[in-house]
Amino acid sequence: MDITRRSVFFVSDSTAITAETLGHCLLAQFDHIRYEPITFPFIDTLEKAEKVVQQINREAETTGLAPIIFSTLIDKEIRDTVKKGRGVFLDLFDTYLEILERELSVPSLHMVGRYHSVSDVSSYDVRIDAINYALQADDGTGTKEYDRADIILLGVSRAGKTPTCLYLGMQFGIYAANYPLTEEDLLGKRGEMPVVLLPFRHKLYGLTINPERLQKIRSQRRPNSRYASFSQCRMEVEAAEAFFDKWAIPYLNVTTMSVEEIASKILHETNLGRRVW
Amino acid sequence: MDITRRSVFFVSDSTAITAETLGHCLLAQFDHIRYEPITFPFIDTLEKAEKVVQQINREAETTGLAPIIFSTLIDKEIRDTVKKGRGVFLDLFDTYLEILERELSVPSLHMVGRYHSVSDVSSYDVRIDAINYALQADDGTGTKEYDRADIILLGVSRAGKTPTCLYLGMQFGIYAANYPLTEEDLLGKRGEMPVVLLPFRHKLYGLTINPERLQKIRSQRRPNSRYASFSQCRMEVEAAEAFFDKWAIPYLNVTTMSVEEIASKILHETNLGRRVW
Repeated sequence: MDITRRSVFFVSDSTAITAETLGHCLLAQFDHIRYEPITFPFIDTLEKAEKVVQQINREAETTGLAPIIFSTLIDKEIRDTVKKGRGVFLDLFDTYLEILERELSVPSLHMVGRYHSVSDVSSYDVRIDAINYALQADDGTGTKEYDRADIILLGVSRAGKTPTCLYLGMQFGIYAANYPLTEEDLLGKRGEMPVVLLPFRHKLYGLTINPERLQKIRSQRRPNSRYASFSQCRMEVEAAEAFFDKWAIPYLNVTTMSVEEIASKILHETNLGRRVW
Repeated sequence: MDITRRSVFFVSDSTAITAETLGHCLLAQFDHIRYEPITFPFIDTLEKAEKVVQQINREAETTGLAPIIFSTLIDKEIRDTVKKGRGVFLDLFDTYLEILERELSVPSLHMVGRYHSVSDVSSYDVRIDAINYALQADDGTGTKEYDRADIILLGVSRAGKTPTCLYLGMQFGIYAANYPLTEEDLLGKRGEMPVVLLPFRHKLYGLTINPERLQKIRSQRRPNSRYASFSQCRMEVEAAEAFFDKWAIPYLNVTTMSVEEIASKILHETNLGRRVW
């Protein structure tokens, strides 16, 4: 029995993404233990539920420890079936649905796969449209689409603009364009505002990054190039920050941030409302 | 007092994305009630917590109904502060952390922002790299990168390939390329396998979509074009499905599916393991 390892199951009648989110958020607080996670999405029949139970019990048998089950199972019968397994069962609906029903004074729908389903086509279309927009207005292409942008991210090459724009579109339905600050923009033109950006100054938001980290990222792309040299990275980053200061563009140092954090921070600081949930 | 409306707060010391996911998953079961959600991310001081409490109480006062608070607050003092508000308080850590501590026989870290932080740089790099890969190998460009692909999605134009590839990279760290089946591929070459795909047959996965929906999507892009006509859509979809059948390529009808569902289904059916959490 090795108590530093634990089997973790994510079980759901739908994608299991919510169950995984729930579980990983909690497990991140226990980093002395190694997890071996298995995901069981689309468990929407009693038969499939019985198979999950068998696997839970087999795992409990083999390891001598009850697996931890994070689940989002809306059907009570399926949920009760999975609960019979020798695991520690943490289910979102089991925990909170009754509280909400009581509080809202209405019964819940008990319908499988409501979340992450295309029940709301218009919000689905917005997300896809926002992703396509991000692709179209990526890397300084599609500048004539800037009037549709909710926000235009500025930064040196590899500061994280593209993934952030895509995430803003995918998660929040925000139309995010990006414009790369090139050496020419920063030095050749002595920090003048690029003409294409002039009409959109209120939409600009900067990303910056520590030169050390930038060098590492660029080196993976073009090892031993001038582009990836520390002096070049430092020079560009300094010039970009000076540019942001000069034009009073709000900016964020993203060195230690994940895409989720960058996107949330931007949304929060610019008071942009999300278009979709 | 209007009981068909309810204020909902998402509160977190970090991005609040987990709290939002949690809340929306539960609220999707109550569609007779309209929500007015406000997100409070980065609530990481007692001062900010007190402000949230004020807003909770103001909302309770104005509407005559206790707002519902979905939260992920790891700091107990901050959590207890927010709990003082006149809301219905559902906190992930409050609910589950003790159960897990007991079960795992260790105290938790109680560290803010562990999830969605770049604590694990290598997994962060994998995600960014997978997103960049998806961009590079999008729409039949970058076919010489197919040896790096975990999966290559096939489908007619606007069947949902690109958003799916991006989501597979962003959420799961999967390297997903896509190849658009053109009219020439489908009809001109009478359904022969395109030469660039031949060495990668084991990586192919098809997306299909109902012609009615495809027509709607294409019409938004190019209204009244041949490309968006129903007959063209039907013809392409039929030929694509015949192509998948001919070459025994597994495929999915994505008409009523969200990006999350498509990506999860593909992962599940191909037994591809996710690279990141």
